[in-house]
Amino acid sequence: MSEMPEIKYFVTGGAGFIGSNLVDRILSQGNEVVVYDNFSTGIREYLEKANKNSRFKLIKGDLLDTKSLNEAIKGCDFVFHLAANADVRFGTEHPSKDLEQNTIATFNVLEAMRKNSINKIAFSSTGSIYGESKIIPTPENAPFPVQTSLYGASKLAGEGLIQAYAEGFGFNAWIFRFVSILGERYPHGHVFDFYKQLRDHPGHLEVLGNGHQKKSYLYVQDCIDAIFTALEKSHKSVNIFNLGTDEYVEVNDSINWICSHLGLDPKISYSGGERGWIGDNPFIFLDCSRIRSLGWKPKNNIQQGIIKTLDFLVENPWVLERR
Amino acid sequence: MSEMPEIKYFVTGGAGFIGSNLVDRILSQGNEVVVYDNFSTGIREYLEKANKNSRFKLIKGDLLDTKSLNEAIKGCDFVFHLAANADVRFGTEHPSKDLEQNTIATFNVLEAMRKNSINKIAFSSTGSIYGESKIIPTPENAPFPVQTSLYGASKLAGEGLIQAYAEGFGFNAWIFRFVSILGERYPHGHVFDFYKQLRDHPGHLEVLGNGHQKKSYLYVQDCIDAIFTALEKSHKSVNIFNLGTDEYVEVNDSINWICSHLGLDPKISYSGGERGWIGDNPFIFLDCSRIRSLGWKPKNNIQQGIIKTLDFLVENPWVLERR
Repeated sequence: MSEMPEIKYFVTGGAGFIGSNLVDRILSQGNEVVVYDNFSTGIREYLEKANKNSRFKLIKGDLLDTKSLNEAIKGCDFVFHLAANADVRFGTEHPSKDLEQNTIATFNVLEAMRKNSINKIAFSSTGSIYGESKIIPTPENAPFPVQTSLYGASKLAGEGLIQAYAEGFGFNAWIFRFVSILGERYPHGHVFDFYKQLRDHPGHLEVLGNGHQKKSYLYVQDCIDAIFTALEKSHKSVNIFNLGTDEYVEVNDSINWICSHLGLDPKISYSGGERGWIGDNPFIFLDCSRIRSLGWKPKNNIQQGIIKTLDFLVENPWVLERR
Repeated sequence: MSEMPEIKYFVTGGAGFIGSNLVDRILSQGNEVVVYDNFSTGIREYLEKANKNSRFKLIKGDLLDTKSLNEAIKGCDFVFHLAANADVRFGTEHPSKDLEQNTIATFNVLEAMRKNSINKIAFSSTGSIYGESKIIPTPENAPFPVQTSLYGASKLAGEGLIQAYAEGFGFNAWIFRFVSILGERYPHGHVFDFYKQLRDHPGHLEVLGNGHQKKSYLYVQDCIDAIFTALEKSHKSVNIFNLGTDEYVEVNDSINWICSHLGLDPKISYSGGERGWIGDNPFIFLDCSRIRSLGWKPKNNIQQGIIKTLDFLVENPWVLERR
């Protein structure tokens, strides 16, 4: 991207795990970035490095506050819409949260773009959108899925809105359906939970589910590489990409790598049956041949991603303590 | 359904075209019905017959008014959620209308059901949800579509929410993806527009699009037969059915039948190119083998449906005049 004219990016959720890593990448490319984040889960410390860069601007605001949003987005060229209620586990406790923070928020972003003549958007969707696909690994054009979580349903709604804006208002859209992402600044999920437990009580580990849940993970820097590969090389009206690795692991594999890296041998107890929680997908494994066909491939396998995540948590204990 | 215990149905949009026909059918089955309609497009006269039945109750209310909705739905056993902003042509003029009246309204219905321990819902979705499918006729498990209209996107969002409630809260859902429906009380669309024009000026007819747009229609009473067939015979957690006929026509066929039935030979002028409007699907033709496998088939072909619609409009000129 370095030979292109300077771009001013707008990043919703830019204080989050993926968002803040993306912001650092944008700044390292010599481009400008405006972060819009309500800090419901965003972390100020993640933007410490960015804060020292004159091309960086932070605006604290909520996507439901359309006045603030319309003001903040002015003059930007390209929107990364990453902000979301991402904790699928709480989906059935507060169903309105997914509707408001994901569906309505996405609508507000699109309307703010339209009002400000911005027509390029990249959107973080999810592999959960495939529900319980019978086709594994699951390609982007899998059979029309049935949703199994409010989180997946809200991302489906967001995708649909973005696609309709592409058709109706001439937007260009890049939609990324992620597997779980790991790496530096990872603030929740298995590795986080397991390490936190082992730090508190190294002798035992409680696992939600039976440990055989299969998961596919992608390392955050590989994820960002893939995003920029797609932006550079794919220029349809609507560009949809699965992002993941071509391998999967069981939760138990992850436990073994974590314990081995930490030099621990805890007693493990399982609870909750085959699925850890309502709406959890027992197996998300994506066919990523579309993004690979553009020349991208991950530089890290799942085990490397897990170890990098663990090292980050070991070096940054404040991340665990703030919860 | 006559041998089953009496059921109390809640019908959103029950003063509309399909809704009011459904209400009459429910009452003829000896069941109770509460209609909830904001009369934004509903028509009081459509409920004249129902109004004389003691098993019928009408509540004027908006689905965005959750207090009124929660009160109205109390004591009902089954929800037909038909209310929607259904005019796809205005999708890009007022994008918030689809979000509010379709997506958020559907969420409000689901929440009202949950609060009142009602867990059975039938939902009117649309064949537009398949966007521009490459597979024609399009089956329910067609490849994951890309949305081409805000209307389709809002119905997609509604389907996803309903599916997530089925998984998360144990709801049973019947989702119907309709082609265009025709018949008595049909209040908008091609037949309405063409007849209205020909009534005003029998000598010429203006057609949006090139007349070669292929369309598949279903007669409203056949549609209602199909709905009750599905409710009776399909009992999965989420039951999705395309509803249409196994034939399609071009807009020009419809014009010929209408003009011939009226004894007119107007001059026809076309405008707007291949597609009539942004978000219009040039061709929706659904594979309905799933509903047919339950024993249903339409009793009327498209031509018969169009003529019945035309006869209704001829006999009820007030329907044309109220716009």
